[in-house]
Amino acid sequence: MWQKLLDAYLKSLIRTGALTLTLPDGTTRRFGPGGPDAPDVAVTITDEATLKALATNPQLALGEAYMDQRLTIAGDDLHGLLELVLRNLAHGHERGLAKLQAALRDLTRGIAQRNPAARSKANVAHHYDLSGALYDFFLDEDRQYSCAYFKTPGDSLDQAQRQKKAHIAGKLRLEPGMTVLDIGCGWGGMGLTLARDYGAEVLGVTLSEEQLKVARARAEAAGLSNRVRFELMDYRAVAGQFDRIVSVGMFEHVGAPNFATYFGKVRELLKPEGVALIHTIGRFTPPGSTNPWITRYIFPGGYIPALSETMAAVEKTGLVSTDVEVWRLHYAYTLRHWYDRFMARQDEAVALYDERFVRMWKFYLVASEQTFRFAGQCVFQLQLARDQQAVPLTRDYLYAPGDPGA
Amino acid sequence: MWQKLLDAYLKSLIRTGALTLTLPDGTTRRFGPGGPDAPDVAVTITDEATLKALATNPQLALGEAYMDQRLTIAGDDLHGLLELVLRNLAHGHERGLAKLQAALRDLTRGIAQRNPAARSKANVAHHYDLSGALYDFFLDEDRQYSCAYFKTPGDSLDQAQRQKKAHIAGKLRLEPGMTVLDIGCGWGGMGLTLARDYGAEVLGVTLSEEQLKVARARAEAAGLSNRVRFELMDYRAVAGQFDRIVSVGMFEHVGAPNFATYFGKVRELLKPEGVALIHTIGRFTPPGSTNPWITRYIFPGGYIPALSETMAAVEKTGLVSTDVEVWRLHYAYTLRHWYDRFMARQDEAVALYDERFVRMWKFYLVASEQTFRFAGQCVFQLQLARDQQAVPLTRDYLYAPGDPGA
Repeated sequence: MWQKLLDAYLKSLIRTGALTLTLPDGTTRRFGPGGPDAPDVAVTITDEATLKALATNPQLALGEAYMDQRLTIAGDDLHGLLELVLRNLAHGHERGLAKLQAALRDLTRGIAQRNPAARSKANVAHHYDLSGALYDFFLDEDRQYSCAYFKTPGDSLDQAQRQKKAHIAGKLRLEPGMTVLDIGCGWGGMGLTLARDYGAEVLGVTLSEEQLKVARARAEAAGLSNRVRFELMDYRAVAGQFDRIVSVGMFEHVGAPNFATYFGKVRELLKPEGVALIHTIGRFTPPGSTNPWITRYIFPGGYIPALSETMAAVEKTGLVSTDVEVWRLHYAYTLRHWYDRFMARQDEAVALYDERFVRMWKFYLVASEQTFRFAGQCVFQLQLARDQQAVPLTRDYLYAPGDPGA
Repeated sequence: MWQKLLDAYLKSLIRTGALTLTLPDGTTRRFGPGGPDAPDVAVTITDEATLKALATNPQLALGEAYMDQRLTIAGDDLHGLLELVLRNLAHGHERGLAKLQAALRDLTRGIAQRNPAARSKANVAHHYDLSGALYDFFLDEDRQYSCAYFKTPGDSLDQAQRQKKAHIAGKLRLEPGMTVLDIGCGWGGMGLTLARDYGAEVLGVTLSEEQLKVARARAEAAGLSNRVRFELMDYRAVAGQFDRIVSVGMFEHVGAPNFATYFGKVRELLKPEGVALIHTIGRFTPPGSTNPWITRYIFPGGYIPALSETMAAVEKTGLVSTDVEVWRLHYAYTLRHWYDRFMARQDEAVALYDERFVRMWKFYLVASEQTFRFAGQCVFQLQLARDQQAVPLTRDYLYAPGDPGA
């Protein structure tokens, strides 16, 4: 019965490329037309329980089965399998139970992403309190854990991350002595850069105790403790007003039910002539829900926003959107760098955690990369202001020769 | 009674600046605190009927009373009066009947903006079939009837309109021989420019017979009839696929109920590697309705979109938004040029139409300018594609030195 259900699901789903599937009983079936537009991948399922899980909840079960090696891929071609799956999902041919499950997730996202302060802290701890050594395996020298900015696909990760910070600083139009609030400051790289290279006075807030510890130590080591302060604090608890607000890769954790709260707080914390720059992963597709494997294993409470629902929240605050930049493929390149660096230190990662954790992390990095390539994910940079004259008349200032952000 | 209602309305509305109001009975009252943040304006209402109309439907009655000279402004300071009104409306202190009326307009916009093909043609004729001489009084040499692109506030209108066309051409990444569909081609200036300066093969469609006649004559005169074709056609009736689609100042006439149809059609008419550039007036504020005076006298069926509702329609098509530029103040500058040019030829305009028409047109130009300055209107340029790789990785190409669009 589960086999028939899985057959029906895959028959409906795979319209480009091909999947050869070997079942626990040793029989083999093939789905899809093949051809040059998508990969041709061979997969083996080792046991009946996995077959049932894949038939009833494929979006959760695929990652779990890969982690547990209950699903194996010929040549361990995870990039190929996820390209095949995501290209076909993007074509919208999902049917049956999986479609029902997605609809149910959409309906219940108000609960799944409610994220009151205590829950937010637990969600953050789940991911960002992982060992710092793990992040050192794959991040750049400044531990930028968000999309880098590639002027060409061949840029190095360190270079592209420097370009990202400079581009953001350019959009913030910083002047020495300006106060900056960094919402979701991570390990402090952005705040330290804005203080050191642009003379800003920074308050960075995070909910991760690990990140806080590292960020404070870095400020101390750089002799910047007098101009950069890091605090363990929910952004909703911040008081005062700032010349500039920057928030990079944090909005993805806010959750759709809290968008109005988020932008309302940005409005409240911004001086009348202030400028904010919100950098977030986005979706080109309509509002929806979060993949259940990602929710369970990687980012509990997380949600990738569409521009429509993001702007609906912005419009209600009275903030003015002065520019919306859309980065395509930059995050795919970033994730490929991360994947390559992580794989080069796979053995150390196994020693730090275990085989299953490493396979989970690999699935996360590859699934994310392929979602940016094939399934409608991107990055939005929203430049916001209270006064429409807070930034220049045209965007030329961002591209002036000699500008470090250009 | 009407006097009390109007008093209550103005008392609630005017929170910045001041309004001195002289009533038909000769009595005078003053509203607002005065001060440097908004104008101090004196207005006289000449008769009871106008007082009643202003009390019961101010958003419609103000323009009508000005047209009919039943409301006069000290020094004819229409800019001052509309700045005062719009600054205060933008603060959201509107109360009572006017707020109810706005809510009702929001609810019924599905009917007011339904715009089937026959209605669209009538709506277009209402405005664009006005005498060409009228438009020559205030538009630039190329009759660009949409927002110009000012590199500095001091740019001339002709220069800023040339920069607008070059900027749009840059976003379209035109190559010689490419086919371009211009939805809402006006008097043909954009299509002729893209053919002459960029080697494009253009189809321009309009619903205005006057515009069509002029556009065709210009193509003939320029010797471009072999590469630019203008047709009297609803965009919904266009067939085929184009390398590029451009639509400047037309989306404002589509109406919210038709946004999905509009972008669905753009998607259908675009080749797989194609790029579209939609240039439209927008609002920073949440979705709403159209000012009733504008609907009655200037643009029947029109609607200024918020980015949230626009993107909601885009997201459903599978189109990818590769860039969203937000122009602030450019249209205020454009409208100020139009106003100054129109006023310089006021006598000719009176001879062509009559005093009341000229006052209507003046009210339209000034109200529009002040809405861009003080009440949350802007211009959105949406660059759309089917393939996220249809445009370069970064926006540098738009700002490269030597590029005519930069």
